[in-house]
Amino acid sequence: MIFASDNWSGAHPAVNDALARHGEGMAAAYGTSDLDKAVEKRFDELFEREVAVFFVGTGTAANSLAFASVNRPGGVVLCHREAHVIEDECGAPEFFTHGARMAPVDGSAGKIDPVRLKRELERFKPDFVHAGQPMAVTVSQPTEVGTLYTSDELDAISAVTRGKGLTLHMDGARFANGLVATGQSPAEMTWKRGVDILSFGATKNGCWCAEAIVVFDPAKASQFPYIRKRGAQLFSKTRFVAAQFMAYLDDGLWLDLAAHANRMADRLRSAIDASPHARLAWPTVTNEIFAVIETATAERLRTKGAVFYDWNPPHDAHDLIGPDEMLARLVTSWSTSESDVDRFADSIEAGA
Amino acid sequence: MIFASDNWSGAHPAVNDALARHGEGMAAAYGTSDLDKAVEKRFDELFEREVAVFFVGTGTAANSLAFASVNRPGGVVLCHREAHVIEDECGAPEFFTHGARMAPVDGSAGKIDPVRLKRELERFKPDFVHAGQPMAVTVSQPTEVGTLYTSDELDAISAVTRGKGLTLHMDGARFANGLVATGQSPAEMTWKRGVDILSFGATKNGCWCAEAIVVFDPAKASQFPYIRKRGAQLFSKTRFVAAQFMAYLDDGLWLDLAAHANRMADRLRSAIDASPHARLAWPTVTNEIFAVIETATAERLRTKGAVFYDWNPPHDAHDLIGPDEMLARLVTSWSTSESDVDRFADSIEAGA
Amino acid sequence: MIFASDNWSGAHPAVNDALARHGEGMAAAYGTSDLDKAVEKRFDELFEREVAVFFVGTGTAANSLAFASVNRPGGVVLCHREAHVIEDECGAPEFFTHGARMAPVDGSAGKIDPVRLKRELERFKPDFVHAGQPMAVTVSQPTEVGTLYTSDELDAISAVTRGKGLTLHMDGARFANGLVATGQSPAEMTWKRGVDILSFGATKNGCWCAEAIVVFDPAKASQFPYIRKRGAQLFSKTRFVAAQFMAYLDDGLWLDLAAHANRMADRLRSAIDASPHARLAWPTVTNEIFAVIETATAERLRTKGAVFYDWNPPHDAHDLIGPDEMLARLVTSWSTSESDVDRFADSIEAGA
Amino acid sequence: MIFASDNWSGAHPAVNDALARHGEGMAAAYGTSDLDKAVEKRFDELFEREVAVFFVGTGTAANSLAFASVNRPGGVVLCHREAHVIEDECGAPEFFTHGARMAPVDGSAGKIDPVRLKRELERFKPDFVHAGQPMAVTVSQPTEVGTLYTSDELDAISAVTRGKGLTLHMDGARFANGLVATGQSPAEMTWKRGVDILSFGATKNGCWCAEAIVVFDPAKASQFPYIRKRGAQLFSKTRFVAAQFMAYLDDGLWLDLAAHANRMADRLRSAIDASPHARLAWPTVTNEIFAVIETATAERLRTKGAVFYDWNPPHDAHDLIGPDEMLARLVTSWSTSESDVDRFADSIEAGA
Repeated sequence: MIFASDNWSGAHPAVNDALARHGEGMAAAYGTSDLDKAVEKRFDELFEREVAVFFVGTGTAANSLAFASVNRPGGVVLCHREAHVIEDECGAPEFFTHGARMAPVDGSAGKIDPVRLKRELERFKPDFVHAGQPMAVTVSQPTEVGTLYTSDELDAISAVTRGKGLTLHMDGARFANGLVATGQSPAEMTWKRGVDILSFGATKNGCWCAEAIVVFDPAKASQFPYIRKRGAQLFSKTRFVAAQFMAYLDDGLWLDLAAHANRMADRLRSAIDASPHARLAWPTVTNEIFAVIETATAERLRTKGAVFYDWNPPHDAHDLIGPDEMLARLVTSWSTSESDVDRFADSIEAGA
Repeated sequence: MIFASDNWSGAHPAVNDALARHGEGMAAAYGTSDLDKAVEKRFDELFEREVAVFFVGTGTAANSLAFASVNRPGGVVLCHREAHVIEDECGAPEFFTHGARMAPVDGSAGKIDPVRLKRELERFKPDFVHAGQPMAVTVSQPTEVGTLYTSDELDAISAVTRGKGLTLHMDGARFANGLVATGQSPAEMTWKRGVDILSFGATKNGCWCAEAIVVFDPAKASQFPYIRKRGAQLFSKTRFVAAQFMAYLDDGLWLDLAAHANRMADRLRSAIDASPHARLAWPTVTNEIFAVIETATAERLRTKGAVFYDWNPPHDAHDLIGPDEMLARLVTSWSTSESDVDRFADSIEAGA
Repeated sequence: MIFASDNWSGAHPAVNDALARHGEGMAAAYGTSDLDKAVEKRFDELFEREVAVFFVGTGTAANSLAFASVNRPGGVVLCHREAHVIEDECGAPEFFTHGARMAPVDGSAGKIDPVRLKRELERFKPDFVHAGQPMAVTVSQPTEVGTLYTSDELDAISAVTRGKGLTLHMDGARFANGLVATGQSPAEMTWKRGVDILSFGATKNGCWCAEAIVVFDPAKASQFPYIRKRGAQLFSKTRFVAAQFMAYLDDGLWLDLAAHANRMADRLRSAIDASPHARLAWPTVTNEIFAVIETATAERLRTKGAVFYDWNPPHDAHDLIGPDEMLARLVTSWSTSESDVDRFADSIEAGA
Repeated sequence: MIFASDNWSGAHPAVNDALARHGEGMAAAYGTSDLDKAVEKRFDELFEREVAVFFVGTGTAANSLAFASVNRPGGVVLCHREAHVIEDECGAPEFFTHGARMAPVDGSAGKIDPVRLKRELERFKPDFVHAGQPMAVTVSQPTEVGTLYTSDELDAISAVTRGKGLTLHMDGARFANGLVATGQSPAEMTWKRGVDILSFGATKNGCWCAEAIVVFDPAKASQFPYIRKRGAQLFSKTRFVAAQFMAYLDDGLWLDLAAHANRMADRLRSAIDASPHARLAWPTVTNEIFAVIETATAERLRTKGAVFYDWNPPHDAHDLIGPDEMLARLVTSWSTSESDVDRFADSIEAGA
């Protein structure tokens, strides 16, 4: 009953097969092998346009280097107050950008409120050096709290950022889970919404270590190779990342895996919703679930082998949790089994 | 006939097997799994003492984060003028340390001359803020030009650094090749010589992406977890690095692979030495060979499928290469075949 | 009628006299002259203990280098949401710390709410690298919006920070204005309240360019000389800063100047309070005034020569300003004349 | 007999008068006052073209921010091995550029050898990310060892850099001393030689704290205001820098002061040349003198009140100094008196 995180899962057998297959023989290093190039082409097809793709090792690297590539002196990145880039990357975005500020914007359900975003941006007057200069807005899709922006919501955000010299970045650490939940195409969820750069994550959904930065206007990526190398993210044997992506994207494996994770989350949500000892903290639609659980029940669940994290409540929801309750995050993955979910369901219904 | 670099090789089947084996099931993320801990223990045994070990994804990350962990404001790292950290990491050491200076020290055969090192250090007067403050000395073993420090030479360097608050770092990107060439134990080549931190590379010698920073005094590594995370080098599924190391270190696989690479290099060296169309630029004892080759021969070799890099001559050897010659670097690896070496040998003897 | 900022004032004649007097002859450079040392002693007396003092050129440098001197990897500085270090230093604190995050904490009247501060700190779990690590809390005294912390309020904040390895920093850009408003001694307002490092500003209150970083525990400042030099803030002719401080602190000049500025602010406040065309946005007690003014009146005031800034409303007070109103900041200084205030008073009473 | 450095001098009375004169009344802050603009115009006239000028507080800031404004990821600045930016700025250039590397180039008499510079640049292959990318070449005029580049020598360097996307920067900490020694105009010594950015120093030559970064193509300076503010070098009362420059440049004061310093140096050189107890280490033509002095004589000179620095010999001249000798640097300034020089002359002739 491991619901700690989707990164507690391992790698899908197809991914391991690809690694074994491509492990033989010699191949050009540092991203120049035939395999690397073939996978780059796959990204073009996937997004229905020519894109620049850069493989890196962690989601933190993807987000941080993306910001670094568009930063300006005194640069400010606007993001949701609970964004992963603020809360969970140990200052890496600030570090790789040499001190860009992650400026929090509030909004319900983990989503930036475009009205507040506009108001924040208006605080920066042209040529007023003291305030610094906004350089990017970043949205997570799905969000850090398991929700999804609708197309209209993304359009509302890009309407605010457009024409202001701002980069719109999307943190897609769980991009596939978002895609299958909405039924959209990769293009529809990104550049057709005005997204300029995407952190495309595959690690959590069946790979070992495969993240890609997708720049939708390749002309803007001319300095990126240096930024990646200087950031210690240019692997020598890049074919090992490429091989993972090849297997991941083949025959829709990635969407199948995400769909499974989402289905397991649905099942888990129903169980929590039905339990007299717990409730959903807020509605989610992907593979992350946030639940308020009776403390005693949570303890008993853990004794029985359930693993999940205590979670900090959102800044604007400190009263969400009662005195004998705790806030739990539960995450399903491509390798979550139905039987584990059902065991958890039985336990939580009974108060464990 | 690929002698471009040992990082053109793939991963050894045993490594891929380990990945497949450990890909199943759930395991704690971010370096806390049982496998991670087991591999950490292996490092203790390997080095005959308790060490702190941090897995990272690239050799550049290993070196850069090692320096970052011991840096001081205005910090200076003394290294050989041709060191990898200066020549080939795109400024990553400077970037991760926020601007520590890599100060070049000359010395023959790619090795820091302890007399010159002492003289360089004496240029820094106590409390003279303008010059900055030396904080580390780094040696590569084997060196960037394929040579090896003897124990006496390492002792001479650590005699200079000792008692001055300096960290002695060893860049061991090809550590195994050095070990088998000298017959020393890991302990003998490192902390028994005064080395404080080691970048322990496994990628080039049969892994995909497995580098470790070994801190011989664990008490000095308290901030390292934050440094690694902030540096975007904390993988979520760290067991994939751990699994590689497990297979790599099991049953002496790593030493066998390095011994093979070194043997292939011996064979290649003999061929070059015997050729009327080429000569060894300087003697080497590991899996890197530097050869001065007639330009026409080099071209013909390449036409026949040989792959090797043009190399910048050392700063103090600009007259090494004649007008119709070029300087080539050739590297063998765990997967270099004897037949490839022999084909190259035949070709270079005949002028290709 | 210049109320733009106290940094629109020049330097007091006594400061210029000191510069002329000390401009003659030779003196040791880089902070080692007799005059530098004499002024350092004055700081010991001023604060009733031995302190380490470092002169720098700007308030931004003072705050940024203070943070840099206590930073840790992934470091977080907690500050008020409207703090100068977030809003008005173009990311310098993040830059000089290599990416420490300025984490906003809300609180009324521009002051950090200790309850919210505690809650923010509790979000950081021990050894949880992802969130980074809090390293300092900074308060402005007076605050960025012209208010003052009481001793009890400062005690409440230091009670939260104490024993957690956190540095308590005070931004004293207008320190003298705060002192004379409270009647406290420098010691009472700082280290007796638990403050560890003070940015002591003199520029706005009659100097040209004289800021000091005061470290109350000199043992913690051993690396500061390198941090200052690397930060390009070690002036060669430091006696020109020392001379300004000498004149500034002599015979209580600094307190007299601040008292004048505060008195002028009182007079201005009364005028605004009495006007039917404006109102005080919130109460202040130092030399900064925030007023909601009818837009038409504000325009007429400006036509008549009044200079003041439009100000961004606090994040939690967007409805403070009506449709035909604007938010103005007005600042008085040591050189503000009573006649200017009275002219402004007459104008604003009449709607300009 | 103070020959420690020209920054041991104070400020010229005309500079102090200007400060007193401009200390009265209110003026716009942060570089926007009428005085600031008037001085900016003076720089246009001085250099016979429209330039962008940015005032900063230290020479270290001028050099570091100049590099920061043209840096690229993995950027490399080529400079002489003994350059001030390497030897004496505590890593500030690396810090402000986030880790650009200062790459040493050798050359006699403290001057970059254009042949070696070309060779160094050729080591960087296009698009080879590992080596980083050269982004600037910096020359000091006069050099760190008191010599001067001729126009032909500067032309030879700019011939190497031209058309390669490199910025040619000149460190003019003692620009005026160079000008009067060569008789050239500011334009002739800078942009007419291909210089793109100049660090224009006035502090050492009669000001308190007045340095300017002059960008000869203003279009390239669009981000500079943010770089300066983020670097904590935007003074609020910038008129105090402007006032210094105004007095400095008026009626040729700056050239008169430099001429005096150079004359005093000539006199001092003659004395050293004539002494049986000392010799000139190498010929210099500005206000810096490097002398090899008998250790006993040096001690006696110091006992008599002479002040001068021990100096590290150039890297390629370790055998310059005999066993009973030391290398001294002596610097004259605008305020050096003839009588002090003559007292020193008498003493050194007599062996002190």
